[in-house]
Amino acid sequence: MSANVPTDICFSFSGLACRGGRTGPHGDGWGIAFYEGRGCRSFHDPRASAHSDIATFLRTFPIKSRIVLSHIRRANRGRVALENTHPFTRELWGRSWSFAHNGQLRGVKRRPLGAFRPIGTTDSEHAFCWMLEQLRVGWAEPPRPAALDAAIAELSRSLNELGTFNLLLSDSRSLYAFCSTRLTRITRRAPFGRATLIDDDLTIDFAEHTSPTDVVTVVATQPLTRDEVWTPLTPGTLAVLRDGLVHTAA
Amino acid sequence: MSANVPTDICFSFSGLACRGGRTGPHGDGWGIAFYEGRGCRSFHDPRASAHSDIATFLRTFPIKSRIVLSHIRRANRGRVALENTHPFTRELWGRSWSFAHNGQLRGVKRRPLGAFRPIGTTDSEHAFCWMLEQLRVGWAEPPRPAALDAAIAELSRSLNELGTFNLLLSDSRSLYAFCSTRLTRITRRAPFGRATLIDDDLTIDFAEHTSPTDVVTVVATQPLTRDEVWTPLTPGTLAVLRDGLVHTAA
Repeated sequence: MSANVPTDICFSFSGLACRGGRTGPHGDGWGIAFYEGRGCRSFHDPRASAHSDIATFLRTFPIKSRIVLSHIRRANRGRVALENTHPFTRELWGRSWSFAHNGQLRGVKRRPLGAFRPIGTTDSEHAFCWMLEQLRVGWAEPPRPAALDAAIAELSRSLNELGTFNLLLSDSRSLYAFCSTRLTRITRRAPFGRATLIDDDLTIDFAEHTSPTDVVTVVATQPLTRDEVWTPLTPGTLAVLRDGLVHTAA
Repeated sequence: MSANVPTDICFSFSGLACRGGRTGPHGDGWGIAFYEGRGCRSFHDPRASAHSDIATFLRTFPIKSRIVLSHIRRANRGRVALENTHPFTRELWGRSWSFAHNGQLRGVKRRPLGAFRPIGTTDSEHAFCWMLEQLRVGWAEPPRPAALDAAIAELSRSLNELGTFNLLLSDSRSLYAFCSTRLTRITRRAPFGRATLIDDDLTIDFAEHTSPTDVVTVVATQPLTRDEVWTPLTPGTLAVLRDGLVHTAA
């Protein structure tokens, strides 16, 4: 989620969490990162989100955030363990970075690392460490947004050549979503309407929870609601989200 | 807390959380980090722990861990904000490091940094980044435990020269506690008895929750229980805790 005002994710997370072991097979752990200004707090649980006490707590506890990033895991590389649970986080340039990945990347562990090293054993965390090292070596200080967007697009395409690389990434300022095979999005703004989850018996009237100037975009692997129009991202492209709006990076 | 078996911290955390805004003045946020093997999950809240929904949840939600590190904040340098809330975390050598600090360090921000940079504005996070950079420059790969213990003792003494540096630090293997002015500890092992919190109306019979071979040490600024004997650490020394046992590093 990217928004232009601090917004809670309770509704969308309620739907997503069901897919971790109830309406979907992604029962090997889950995590979520909430940005609040420069700060980031994340919650991780190696248990299925549909049966996790922490997930149950978060479904009803509104944390207001302008960028939120969440992942439910179906393990392929790396055992089910806390250290293998996305989103992964690192600091670069005094910013908190979070990374969540869907897919497999053949041979990614042969890409050399530098200052960032995996704590767990997933391909995904290795890819994250590799990406950050390229950025760190490229710029001692953070570059302008357009240069950073272009660099992340290029690094994403490079990783995508190794297999499937659906990505959510944030540096606390932008939310990056690289579509390798499947990502879809919806942008909600005035006039706000009602929406019903696909995975749970829950309807919301966004008009009751928003102001007329709010803009909120949600990106997900599959649509989370049954009565709204979601727009698929184009495979091979990076969407850059700032303040709830979507830009496409070259 | 350091323990030789995965142990929950619900009882001790219930007492500590009261000090964040009810029985104590440390109402400017709180955080806690739980290690599970190589993995670490942390919870942060810029609100007072005595009035925090997340703290209330964690008081009764048993996360089993061998190393836990928690901090309640009374802000001096750095505004009340998520990014200024301890414990701070970074990765070095593929290990997850957590750092919590009590005290003020005059001029610490003049110490040069390298690969690790603060996300927030506290003296404490700057000190953490400085410590990790010294370790990173000293060793490309993690040194033997005795060498690491000695290095952390030396770095702690160096920071302690700038003011007050009561420290809790972990690399997922050891828990380091540097006593600048005030830290106290208790080691619990068989035969286990009963204990009553100072800050809350709560008594526990550890015999009901433990096995005869369990060893658990808790370090805190002030004793958490009224009916046990706590042992003050000696100012200027680093306690190294592994598997619930306390060693003193030179």
